[in-house]
Amino acid sequence: MRRDRIFLATTLTAIFSADLYFILLPKLRSIRQTSGHFCSCAPKNFTLPRHGGLASPQLSNWTSALPLDVTTSESDDGISKLERLFSHPLYNIQIPLLGPEERLLQAEQLMEYYRRKVSRWERHMKAYSEAAAVSNITVTEHEVTFDPDASWVKFHLGINRYALYSRDDPAIPKLLREMQSMAVVSADYTQDEKALKGACDCTQVVKPSGHHLKLALKMQNFAKAMFKPMRQQRDEETPEDFFYFVDFQRHNAEIAAFHLDRILDFRRVPPVSGRLVNITGEVLQVTHNEDLRGVFFTSPASNTCFFAKCLYVCKTEYAVCGNPDLLEGSLSAYLPGLSIAPRISIPNPWIRSYTFSGREEWEVNPFYCDTIKQMYPYNSGNRLLNIIDMSIFDFLIGNMDRHHYEIFTKFGDEGFLLHLDNARGFGKHSVDEMSILAPLSQCCMIKRSTLMRLQLLTRREYRLSDVMRESLQADPLHPILMEPHLLALDRRLQKVLRMVQRCVRRLGENEVIARDFEKSTSTPQATTEMREVR
Amino acid sequence: MRRDRIFLATTLTAIFSADLYFILLPKLRSIRQTSGHFCSCAPKNFTLPRHGGLASPQLSNWTSALPLDVTTSESDDGISKLERLFSHPLYNIQIPLLGPEERLLQAEQLMEYYRRKVSRWERHMKAYSEAAAVSNITVTEHEVTFDPDASWVKFHLGINRYALYSRDDPAIPKLLREMQSMAVVSADYTQDEKALKGACDCTQVVKPSGHHLKLALKMQNFAKAMFKPMRQQRDEETPEDFFYFVDFQRHNAEIAAFHLDRILDFRRVPPVSGRLVNITGEVLQVTHNEDLRGVFFTSPASNTCFFAKCLYVCKTEYAVCGNPDLLEGSLSAYLPGLSIAPRISIPNPWIRSYTFSGREEWEVNPFYCDTIKQMYPYNSGNRLLNIIDMSIFDFLIGNMDRHHYEIFTKFGDEGFLLHLDNARGFGKHSVDEMSILAPLSQCCMIKRSTLMRLQLLTRREYRLSDVMRESLQADPLHPILMEPHLLALDRRLQKVLRMVQRCVRRLGENEVIARDFEKSTSTPQATTEMREVR
Repeated sequence: MRRDRIFLATTLTAIFSADLYFILLPKLRSIRQTSGHFCSCAPKNFTLPRHGGLASPQLSNWTSALPLDVTTSESDDGISKLERLFSHPLYNIQIPLLGPEERLLQAEQLMEYYRRKVSRWERHMKAYSEAAAVSNITVTEHEVTFDPDASWVKFHLGINRYALYSRDDPAIPKLLREMQSMAVVSADYTQDEKALKGACDCTQVVKPSGHHLKLALKMQNFAKAMFKPMRQQRDEETPEDFFYFVDFQRHNAEIAAFHLDRILDFRRVPPVSGRLVNITGEVLQVTHNEDLRGVFFTSPASNTCFFAKCLYVCKTEYAVCGNPDLLEGSLSAYLPGLSIAPRISIPNPWIRSYTFSGREEWEVNPFYCDTIKQMYPYNSGNRLLNIIDMSIFDFLIGNMDRHHYEIFTKFGDEGFLLHLDNARGFGKHSVDEMSILAPLSQCCMIKRSTLMRLQLLTRREYRLSDVMRESLQADPLHPILMEPHLLALDRRLQKVLRMVQRCVRRLGENEVIARDFEKSTSTPQATTEMREVR
Repeated sequence: MRRDRIFLATTLTAIFSADLYFILLPKLRSIRQTSGHFCSCAPKNFTLPRHGGLASPQLSNWTSALPLDVTTSESDDGISKLERLFSHPLYNIQIPLLGPEERLLQAEQLMEYYRRKVSRWERHMKAYSEAAAVSNITVTEHEVTFDPDASWVKFHLGINRYALYSRDDPAIPKLLREMQSMAVVSADYTQDEKALKGACDCTQVVKPSGHHLKLALKMQNFAKAMFKPMRQQRDEETPEDFFYFVDFQRHNAEIAAFHLDRILDFRRVPPVSGRLVNITGEVLQVTHNEDLRGVFFTSPASNTCFFAKCLYVCKTEYAVCGNPDLLEGSLSAYLPGLSIAPRISIPNPWIRSYTFSGREEWEVNPFYCDTIKQMYPYNSGNRLLNIIDMSIFDFLIGNMDRHHYEIFTKFGDEGFLLHLDNARGFGKHSVDEMSILAPLSQCCMIKRSTLMRLQLLTRREYRLSDVMRESLQADPLHPILMEPHLLALDRRLQKVLRMVQRCVRRLGENEVIARDFEKSTSTPQATTEMREVR
């Protein structure tokens, strides 16, 4: 019986030690961490007086409001954090009533434009069907109906000088749903792929060659979306030896970037939805493009695949395959055509060198921003602040590939920057690439409204990773991001705020935190650096 | 105290159940499995009478000797299984004394040849150093000494009409050791890479384009080896949608194939060793090739990398990187130069279609072998049996890419087939690609000596996976193969033997099991199908 007791004591000690080590200690640790102070910096209500643009809402002593020690502890009361966020006053700033000049498109003009496009499409379809019948090609034909009330038309009509869409526009969730399920009536290469005519763009030594896989899909209601197929598993990280410019494009990054942009209230990314595309029925069988048909094949595992075709290169290594036909991808809503809503593409002043060892000036000159600040169009107005917004967005998603940005010509230099092409984000959750924040660290300025939203998103009730997780759950391909990527958002957000804090400490709040809109003093004019978007 | 006792009882029951389930049951199961019958078919001793070549050793009733029910249970008495295998009579068949015609090279001739090469090299080095000094290129220079007694010279001199090396040649382990550690004095593209001149070989729709990474390294003692860098982690499997012809080349497959070939007693693969190569010090700094120097770069993670360069293509995606300079690779000993020991490269009659959907005749015609048997050089002698040996070897390693084979012209049609270029083996451990065995299944014949060795390797004391594991442990990069690949060898071996068994049941032993060497009746002559190896 003595031995029994010893045994019993040993067993209990072991169990208790395990309990202590694995259960109690972690709990204690997490309690200690969450006991840090929380600020409550919720501003009460905002309206934006028409004052040459958006004025900044009042902020109490902002530095004390920086909740840098917020940790990731959970405390959910069952209420949707995302809804709470979107009903926060910061997300309910009213924009002034929009005049015609502040809208990208006029309804009549747009309808006329699309009616012409529809009738051209119908003529094309007729001619194609006849030709296909002669050459014995079977192409699935779908009825196409143009509806002036379609969600994508409403999306186009809703674009204004402040953002791509308004916060509560019901057309946006409808557009997302339609992109997820509506019948695809045709598939083709995108215009820029066609411009390359099969030649890979090798101008920069090492441009990626596997990017010819994005396709333009047309839906039954004439909506158009860009399809980027899945190239990488969600849990794969970009190899550390990859240059940013040879990194894969990730369909889930494209989706997640749209959600983040909306959560940051930028609304500068066109709506993106995930979709399981049947690449046989919804691409191969509906394309009228012989070249595209030619890159389809059946893999040894009997899956349908298609590959990128470059002149002189044979690259099934780059093929993507369905299972056997179904393939995940992102669908990004197209912006209005360039002929009706021209945009210009402008090199990012903080562009990277697309060579192995080259360095750009901003990487070696700590006073680079002073130069930029003197240069048109960055010498006045909001442009530089917009660039800094973009750099914060790119830092959060980890996108190093922002070589150009686009703006609508109609809105001139005061227009917002479009955050297009985000598929190289979310490559490495374990790395925070601080160089992406160079515009912020070198210029030391940020819009007050951006800063306040960033601060809000560090608070437990609105925590960025939580609202992102919730937002992404609406996508049919969820989970879109693995947990480490979501947690990286919180960590990076803290780094942005810490950088702002350092700037304020050095230069003072007035220098760093900018009122949102300031009237441009110089007349907008195209510089040689700008180029028309093809 | 009662509760204590209950608790104690519960604990003990739990421990006993776990013990029963995890320890005792598996043990019982393995005992039951190993109690299956083992045949003991060890032949006592063999000598090979000079009888137009090798005669086959006597075999008792072979079918009863097929130990198909051998399982993978362990029973090691501490003795090296590999040593036991190599001391087995089947591995000690004496070959007749070699006359000069049965050796590939004569010593005097070879020495003269290499002395000329050495002096050419020295002239080249001198000229290069002068030129490099002028253009300010720093190249590490090493003293090169040609030793007529070097292991690689002995390897070359030992090649004979039966095999690339004899079983107990001490030069082979010495050569392996030297390849592992000897200073590299120069690096260059291989001859066939140079022939492509940077153009990727796209003749077959989809030839892989990332194969320009293999390099020829010259050692301090003038030995030459082909370096294939690591491209894939050991635990990665080839994606199921990959065609065999776009699969990666695996350095560990190259190493493992050499060991397997030796274990099968074929000795038709030149010695291969793993090595951790310093790609800066042992490639970049010793190459005299400007093009090769041009493909080196430093990665974002500060590792030294180099990439495959194809005309019109920019492919850092294919880059391999050191850590920061060290990179695993396989080093395969070069065969004697083609000018002194010419070889011909002959299309494999069971070649695959290198297109997406094409099929070769053997894939659709079940009587394909009957046609082949009528055709020179397969209509007499050993050639067809050699092809079948090769297909068994390829089936075991899972290599689908044997489009050509090579033989030394000196030995004519009776020469053995070289099993070169095995880097596409060991891609998928979970798949046994039965089509690789088509020569065996369609011709239903096998050499008696091959069959006997395969049978031996299914026996517990000589189990293929065990001797392979042991053999591979000698390589500095061990583990070379992950366990699933080793176990796949046992499984595939059983499938080969089962196929032979089916043939014997159908056609009888005399038809299926061939005496090893038969004198060729037709005069050897080059057919149009043969082509000189460049």
